[in-house]
Amino acid sequence: MAVNGTNRCVVLNKPLDIAFENRPVPEIGHGDVLVNIKATGICGSDVHYWLKGGVGSFIVKKPMVLGHESAGIIAAVGPGVTNLKVGDRVALEPGVACRMCEQCKQGRYNLCPEMVFAATPPYDGTLCNYYRHAADFCYKLPDHVTLEEGALIEPLSVGIHAARRSQIRSGHRVFIFGAGPVGLLTAAAAKAAGASHITIADITPSRLEFAKTYCTNSQVLLERPEQGEPNIEYSRRTAAKILETEQLSDVVIDCTGAETCVQTAVLLTKNGGSVVLVGMGAAVQSLPIADISAREVDIKGIFRYCNTYPMAVEMLASGAIDVKPLITHSYSLEDSVKAFEHARDGTDNAIKIQILG
Amino acid sequence: MAVNGTNRCVVLNKPLDIAFENRPVPEIGHGDVLVNIKATGICGSDVHYWLKGGVGSFIVKKPMVLGHESAGIIAAVGPGVTNLKVGDRVALEPGVACRMCEQCKQGRYNLCPEMVFAATPPYDGTLCNYYRHAADFCYKLPDHVTLEEGALIEPLSVGIHAARRSQIRSGHRVFIFGAGPVGLLTAAAAKAAGASHITIADITPSRLEFAKTYCTNSQVLLERPEQGEPNIEYSRRTAAKILETEQLSDVVIDCTGAETCVQTAVLLTKNGGSVVLVGMGAAVQSLPIADISAREVDIKGIFRYCNTYPMAVEMLASGAIDVKPLITHSYSLEDSVKAFEHARDGTDNAIKIQILG
Amino acid sequence: MAVNGTNRCVVLNKPLDIAFENRPVPEIGHGDVLVNIKATGICGSDVHYWLKGGVGSFIVKKPMVLGHESAGIIAAVGPGVTNLKVGDRVALEPGVACRMCEQCKQGRYNLCPEMVFAATPPYDGTLCNYYRHAADFCYKLPDHVTLEEGALIEPLSVGIHAARRSQIRSGHRVFIFGAGPVGLLTAAAAKAAGASHITIADITPSRLEFAKTYCTNSQVLLERPEQGEPNIEYSRRTAAKILETEQLSDVVIDCTGAETCVQTAVLLTKNGGSVVLVGMGAAVQSLPIADISAREVDIKGIFRYCNTYPMAVEMLASGAIDVKPLITHSYSLEDSVKAFEHARDGTDNAIKIQILG
Amino acid sequence: MAVNGTNRCVVLNKPLDIAFENRPVPEIGHGDVLVNIKATGICGSDVHYWLKGGVGSFIVKKPMVLGHESAGIIAAVGPGVTNLKVGDRVALEPGVACRMCEQCKQGRYNLCPEMVFAATPPYDGTLCNYYRHAADFCYKLPDHVTLEEGALIEPLSVGIHAARRSQIRSGHRVFIFGAGPVGLLTAAAAKAAGASHITIADITPSRLEFAKTYCTNSQVLLERPEQGEPNIEYSRRTAAKILETEQLSDVVIDCTGAETCVQTAVLLTKNGGSVVLVGMGAAVQSLPIADISAREVDIKGIFRYCNTYPMAVEMLASGAIDVKPLITHSYSLEDSVKAFEHARDGTDNAIKIQILG
Repeated sequence: MAVNGTNRCVVLNKPLDIAFENRPVPEIGHGDVLVNIKATGICGSDVHYWLKGGVGSFIVKKPMVLGHESAGIIAAVGPGVTNLKVGDRVALEPGVACRMCEQCKQGRYNLCPEMVFAATPPYDGTLCNYYRHAADFCYKLPDHVTLEEGALIEPLSVGIHAARRSQIRSGHRVFIFGAGPVGLLTAAAAKAAGASHITIADITPSRLEFAKTYCTNSQVLLERPEQGEPNIEYSRRTAAKILETEQLSDVVIDCTGAETCVQTAVLLTKNGGSVVLVGMGAAVQSLPIADISAREVDIKGIFRYCNTYPMAVEMLASGAIDVKPLITHSYSLEDSVKAFEHARDGTDNAIKIQILG
Repeated sequence: MAVNGTNRCVVLNKPLDIAFENRPVPEIGHGDVLVNIKATGICGSDVHYWLKGGVGSFIVKKPMVLGHESAGIIAAVGPGVTNLKVGDRVALEPGVACRMCEQCKQGRYNLCPEMVFAATPPYDGTLCNYYRHAADFCYKLPDHVTLEEGALIEPLSVGIHAARRSQIRSGHRVFIFGAGPVGLLTAAAAKAAGASHITIADITPSRLEFAKTYCTNSQVLLERPEQGEPNIEYSRRTAAKILETEQLSDVVIDCTGAETCVQTAVLLTKNGGSVVLVGMGAAVQSLPIADISAREVDIKGIFRYCNTYPMAVEMLASGAIDVKPLITHSYSLEDSVKAFEHARDGTDNAIKIQILG
Repeated sequence: MAVNGTNRCVVLNKPLDIAFENRPVPEIGHGDVLVNIKATGICGSDVHYWLKGGVGSFIVKKPMVLGHESAGIIAAVGPGVTNLKVGDRVALEPGVACRMCEQCKQGRYNLCPEMVFAATPPYDGTLCNYYRHAADFCYKLPDHVTLEEGALIEPLSVGIHAARRSQIRSGHRVFIFGAGPVGLLTAAAAKAAGASHITIADITPSRLEFAKTYCTNSQVLLERPEQGEPNIEYSRRTAAKILETEQLSDVVIDCTGAETCVQTAVLLTKNGGSVVLVGMGAAVQSLPIADISAREVDIKGIFRYCNTYPMAVEMLASGAIDVKPLITHSYSLEDSVKAFEHARDGTDNAIKIQILG
Repeated sequence: MAVNGTNRCVVLNKPLDIAFENRPVPEIGHGDVLVNIKATGICGSDVHYWLKGGVGSFIVKKPMVLGHESAGIIAAVGPGVTNLKVGDRVALEPGVACRMCEQCKQGRYNLCPEMVFAATPPYDGTLCNYYRHAADFCYKLPDHVTLEEGALIEPLSVGIHAARRSQIRSGHRVFIFGAGPVGLLTAAAAKAAGASHITIADITPSRLEFAKTYCTNSQVLLERPEQGEPNIEYSRRTAAKILETEQLSDVVIDCTGAETCVQTAVLLTKNGGSVVLVGMGAAVQSLPIADISAREVDIKGIFRYCNTYPMAVEMLASGAIDVKPLITHSYSLEDSVKAFEHARDGTDNAIKIQILG
């Protein structure tokens, strides 16, 4: 029986040092399930941990299993679990909040200071055969939604949360900086939320080529700042150029973290609109505050997501969002290092690379 | 030149008495435009005025031109008009608010007590050749959106307003009572706002047949109450039966005005969800208040719409909503009486009947 | 030590049959605290259980400890509790939600279908010496807030939740039906939320006399319907009479549950305003739907409350709300039956009667 | 009769050059009133125009009457005016929006690009005897509210708009940077909106002394950055020091425009809280973006206000806000230059200086 099987884990010991370990199959307690992980996407943060041993203030200090974009099959259910049974196919929401603090009680559990999040130090991730998880953070997939699609709900959730926080409504114009997986999934979420026109911008032509086929109405190739050009001057110049062909947007979403993009985002937003920060870049950045004040452009940050999985499952099931085109490559668990190298290099027009178990 | 032309008007003198009059082409003032009306949909209220001489508290006391769902071509522009020029193709938002009261200043101008609304007594409607209108309540149509589609923005606006007031979001389940034009357009607006599953209910099988092809995921054929059955018992029985195959909905929208539908709507709504009242029926109705209280189901009324036209134009232009399938029949202005008779009888699977000028 | 002490409990065996039992002091588990209850207010629902053995669909089928408006002193803390220590003075939020369902995760845990609520069958209440409770639903009181005040946070929470759901803002006019404890506390919450003018209505002159001294700007004495007068006619007549001296209100809150009050509430609300239903009355009631539709008056139900205790503690601590004037009488635990009789009869201008332990 | 009287105007010709001119009494048109101005507060922007000839992008290119914080008595009413009559005492909302653009129709008319605002070039202000104004932007004052108080509704409106945009609710903690008139009025608005604890910070001890008596619960004396200290380091150091005695705030409002205050504001805000920018400072400023992202701290700009006057009148009338303590000095119209000098120097603990006509 599965629960007595091998539990092969992809462990990051230190930067650039990934090892495969056979760890015990986790025991499960009240309210828990054991999930046989079948598909896990590689996130930019996984690559960053692998290359640098940390992301922002999160530092890997002891060996940590990587991975947090996963789906799998229920292998065992603990006492008290009523929503799932062995054999159910589920997507995993990888963060379990404390359920008790003010943020949890108010429904913004992504801001819970006691959050236990897969593959965020010191907590192990999901790149393994068997992962113990809270049953209520596992979401059953309909038969016609694959586990590979289910694993994409995690990054899609970021896009859904961004679209929701930005209050995108029917008929809105949306502008997105960054045409990587998160930018594209944010475009899909924005479209599903009613955006009637979505423009996406990137510095890589091949990404824009793909975006042309996926949820976006127009594509803008960004140039880099000129030698010595101050960021704000570049941003003003870039915004002016973009506005020669594009209208101001109700919502602009930055998925790059670059100061120039954030600045340009403010300048591309309508009076009374919103800029949403999804990308994480430099900790301190200069913003055109006068536009924020005199035009009441709101700035909203996005930290992961909350309450997105049920609606994401609905959206995949109904076809409102199709994530399959983003899955460009897959590897076996044993080939995880190759998968990480591919994700790092981004060759062969890779968008989302998954490890299948 | 058009402005010196004939201004043929479809005038309701008294119930069942429609006359054709040549009235002077209106003079236009500061901020006005003159619109050569080209397409006008027949609304249930037009039919009601024709048959009964009034709708609710609005009574036709002197001859009144009918019609308010219109689009046309700008024939002249008054002083101060900068957003439009002669020849522009526009949709008309038929109500002009006072712009000065608390409701107008707060952006809910549909609640303005001084509203001047086409074909609402004592104000003349748009079933004529030339109609004077405030320029800022005319919305330019892109080249690829026809005037017939433009005329449908008026009833579509009701659906958009309902979807917006109900706060439909991505992944929501929506249930709609009534599969007439407004119910169908509300379904289209709900889908454009992100609803992932839309169920529509009606007592007429042919309407459900059409709805199966238009923006809805499932269709429910309603039966009539049994002889002597109290409405609330019928409603409980009906809700229970519907819930054998349908889940509770985040939002339920009634487009019928029938007490049984409104009652059933409350019973079909999730805890914390909303019931939206679009249909107008009996002035006093019984509601299952205990559900409203103990499950925090909000009840929201819809009176016309506000701030919908710009987004509706965007949605037609982008293809997010396709209204063309609803235009089943059209008549010339001279055949207006036939058009009204057809709308009254609803024969030949009529959904929206338009009068083309 | 307290935890080995007597645990005297006020047990309702069946209607009108209250017994005193010495029950074991509860054992506490992970995340629990044991609270030595010191003050408990009597709620209308307690009296109703005592008199009738049930409230709405909640029926007392086995002996049940009464009481749920309580404050006390921490007598023991279970493992994992970090926010409280023995000796802390706390107010108890008497409902513990499942923390796992969609409603809990979205921050509307009052709508949790698995809610365990004190003195709601089959769960025992707080009229005892020692009550086991989840630590995170106990809120520490500042030194200058008494336990008697702390016990009033429970009914105050209903008012806070009503004021919040109604979106009362600075400068709003608020009208409240019912000048009992909940109506008065709702007035206090409305005032604290910025209402600039609060009118309260009741059929009992002495209650209005008290209200004149507590958070309200004007008072309206309601008459009863005339013999045979239909409710809606009474309501229209009453609304018209009230509007001779009062303006329409932004928000009208019903704390009576009476159909006539709910109807009148709709008629007294501004275009675009809200009616909030706090009182629980007949399960099915007639409403003036035409006003809800044509004037976009929203109807919102209130079921208990969520996320109110932290702000309520802040408000008592800062003096923004003063609940002390409402505590008119108190009894010892052994005199609980007298307390219930007094609450039933409402003599001696009783507002809130508390049982002190 | 007044309308034939002298119209003495305080005209700014160029920086530091104020002249008194007798201009014709304005003629009034449809919907207009003529107001005999009786009280006008001096705003920081007036002083700035006087000293520098411009504020931000607004440059005085031809002689302009100063002043925009005014109240007065209706001297004449134009055709179509029904809400006012000669002799009414009114507060003037000094900006008249176009009433036709998307922003106006959506109720955010402060963002109207065609706004005509008193004493914002090229439009004349209210420091005169007779001012023509749109009747619906004049708000009648109750008998017991003085014209001096009425003139303070303009800066109070900024505070109300800030409190509203920040969604301050009952029980919230609010932190305000800047204890000048706008900071103090923002504190008053925050308190009226339900804030239970307000902290105010400034670099001037005497301002904090006053604030201690006006709507604030604690006061923080800010130090200046050390020589050569980068702003972000100063801000982090300052925030850490403040948090030794203060809790994180739900809402932080900056009324200074200083980069250090805006940075510190972000650091003092709770997860999921809001920073509101009322002050106008450097056009480009550095912000601690990582906090905005990882803690979902929203940044919201404030540009003037909209829909504040009716509620402000209610709040002054009900006593919810008392602005009288802020009026520390007054001058006659002929002494306007002295008034401006006093406002510039801020001597004698001046808070709000008014010119009375």
